[in-house]
Amino acid sequence: MKIDLTSAIRLTPGDLQQAQAALRTLKTGTGAGSEFTGWTTLPQTTGTEEFRRICQLGKKLYEEADALIVIGIGGSYMGARSAIELLKTPYHNQRKGNGPAIYFLGNGICAEDIRTVLQLVEGTDYYVNVISKSGTTLEPALAFRVLKQELQTRLGKEEAARHIICTTDKARGALKTLADAEGYECFVIPDDVGGRYSVLTAVGLLPMAAAGIDIRQVMEGAAAGMKEFFAEEDSNPALLYSAARIALYRTGKKIEIFSYQGEKMRSFAEWYKQLFGESEGKELGGIFPASCQLTADLHSLGQYIQEGERILMESIVRFEKTGCELVIPKDDDDLDGLNYTAGKTFDDAFLAAAQGVKKAHADGGVPVMELIFDRPDEWNLGYMTAFYEVSCAVSSYMRDINPFNQPGVEAYKKNMFTLLGKYR
Amino acid sequence: MKIDLTSAIRLTPGDLQQAQAALRTLKTGTGAGSEFTGWTTLPQTTGTEEFRRICQLGKKLYEEADALIVIGIGGSYMGARSAIELLKTPYHNQRKGNGPAIYFLGNGICAEDIRTVLQLVEGTDYYVNVISKSGTTLEPALAFRVLKQELQTRLGKEEAARHIICTTDKARGALKTLADAEGYECFVIPDDVGGRYSVLTAVGLLPMAAAGIDIRQVMEGAAAGMKEFFAEEDSNPALLYSAARIALYRTGKKIEIFSYQGEKMRSFAEWYKQLFGESEGKELGGIFPASCQLTADLHSLGQYIQEGERILMESIVRFEKTGCELVIPKDDDDLDGLNYTAGKTFDDAFLAAAQGVKKAHADGGVPVMELIFDRPDEWNLGYMTAFYEVSCAVSSYMRDINPFNQPGVEAYKKNMFTLLGKYR
Repeated sequence: MKIDLTSAIRLTPGDLQQAQAALRTLKTGTGAGSEFTGWTTLPQTTGTEEFRRICQLGKKLYEEADALIVIGIGGSYMGARSAIELLKTPYHNQRKGNGPAIYFLGNGICAEDIRTVLQLVEGTDYYVNVISKSGTTLEPALAFRVLKQELQTRLGKEEAARHIICTTDKARGALKTLADAEGYECFVIPDDVGGRYSVLTAVGLLPMAAAGIDIRQVMEGAAAGMKEFFAEEDSNPALLYSAARIALYRTGKKIEIFSYQGEKMRSFAEWYKQLFGESEGKELGGIFPASCQLTADLHSLGQYIQEGERILMESIVRFEKTGCELVIPKDDDDLDGLNYTAGKTFDDAFLAAAQGVKKAHADGGVPVMELIFDRPDEWNLGYMTAFYEVSCAVSSYMRDINPFNQPGVEAYKKNMFTLLGKYR
Repeated sequence: MKIDLTSAIRLTPGDLQQAQAALRTLKTGTGAGSEFTGWTTLPQTTGTEEFRRICQLGKKLYEEADALIVIGIGGSYMGARSAIELLKTPYHNQRKGNGPAIYFLGNGICAEDIRTVLQLVEGTDYYVNVISKSGTTLEPALAFRVLKQELQTRLGKEEAARHIICTTDKARGALKTLADAEGYECFVIPDDVGGRYSVLTAVGLLPMAAAGIDIRQVMEGAAAGMKEFFAEEDSNPALLYSAARIALYRTGKKIEIFSYQGEKMRSFAEWYKQLFGESEGKELGGIFPASCQLTADLHSLGQYIQEGERILMESIVRFEKTGCELVIPKDDDDLDGLNYTAGKTFDDAFLAAAQGVKKAHADGGVPVMELIFDRPDEWNLGYMTAFYEVSCAVSSYMRDINPFNQPGVEAYKKNMFTLLGKYR
């Protein structure tokens, strides 16, 4: 990857040293939450029996299933969803001959989502992958109650059990207990990996494999990334990015806009927002993560970015090559006046737009960091995952924040359970 | 609708008077940009020949077309997309017997989007609705070049012309000139309505009608809304909402989080972000519009909202009834411990979650406004449109900002065109 911090951002040696110190804290396991740094070694797990079973079941689902319904909330769906949209397009479920349709349920409390998906899969051979460490989180648990009942009514208890896959704790919890009693196939959410860092466990890998994604390539990219971003060198892009964003935050840039290329990266931006928002938003501080789709949202948030409150920084994330070539056609009438672009590719035009945006926003007082990855493929998905995970941990440690807990998420749950009558 | 400003927000008589004055500025056409307030009377246009033609063609497309590809950027696609996702679910294109699939292209510069959609509609009877006031905006113009060529190659020029519908200026511009020359059916983007306020013109109404949405009901709701939100009474929810958000902004709340119920409202939140971001983000000020899906993003941005920088205000937008009932099933084993919710509906559980969120965020120092609309139907879509449009204009005038221009959007375009060689 390449990183361009642009001229608006001047890093001091102190900024970089602080980032390096934060990286050492991560590597040596001496920081807050260090019991949750198992994600750093996940790319080395491709030789395990667990990984072999993920590949095997993924292949079976890819070849045989009509649909896979993934039940999970937060980190238990965002990684897989973003991978599938990036690598298989957001139109995956409408394309034939590309493996099962993949639906995501249980990430909210919405009857219509459940009903609609059940209508769509009616009469087909669909599987359910329920993902929950405890099995008691309200949203996925409610959706799973409905889906389990539906499968059991339709197929009988035994055959239903063959259509349910659990990704959960290795030994404890409601879901694990149920899975053991019913004989559901199980995969493990490791104890030392938090939800938002779990995309390279069965949580993310199984739905990806079912969609036909080569997860071994994903892991190779992640391994290469972890190695590169763990290096304590000044050229390490994760250090530069972390140092820049924290330095900017300290000068009053409170919002980071993650600007990305095309609809297929939309869910990846959501994954980024969860990773950073939930890691950094603590102790009444932290950078607020927002996103902007290029070029669509330039006709939306673009005005604000250009001329609104100067509390913004922006990271423009793009690919060197998109792998999809389309030449702009010449038009005999040229009424739109765009024949001067004819013969160029859409990628050429996007590059001009991205460069135009970079200059315009920087000129307008928004410090821009440009992050350029090679291409939207499996390897780079893993590599990008490593980049953002390491950068997030380093950024948090630079502010002496625990990157791995989420104490604030309990507040609404407690109120909700009281209102639902649990504590009557 | 109901509005609850919660106890964290104390409006002074001065706040409300200022909102009332801003509303008068809008109504009397004495504010900046008053030549673009045609949107206020759009709900009264259901008797026009234009509206009759929209209904007629919409019906034809609904009954006969396999797909409709809508080409447009910014306000030229966000309204229709949000309406279709809200009223027809985000799964519309996968459901059979519900009218044509509706695709949105030309809102970015992405070859793969175009190629994928062309694959999906291959061999089917699809139509193209190109929406552009000038016909020279780069993103839609490039996509239209490809689609026009594709249709002409496949159907011949004459039959292709019968599959292309233009929504554009009534008399001038590249697209209007081309449409007249080729005999494309045309609909009008009125001169006194800006892009982000155009959802109740043919821009939004034609794709909605093609998807089977009753646009007369949409207009009735909008008419009722415009009437209610134009009243200079203290109980007018648009005045209360505008007064509250600007008062909060003045105390340092720089970000408004639009928290909404379920995936089907996601694109409506994008429409809101464009409407407010592009209207308010000027003169180095304005509220930054963000969004949060309930309850999905409580396991993402939720941590930040609860404990991050205290520069947030939140508007929780929900429906009194969702119109889709699903009862939480009892489970004999009750391993998830949720039998105490059995017999309640998903709507009951969502209400508990929403109330839990409201209290948790308010307790955490985020002022919450709760906006409750009746149900997600056609009438309420129109009503909500009126609510947000009036509120946006009033909020802008409270800050002496022109709500109807977007000078900052030109900056990136100018750079881009230079890089593409237009100004060689």
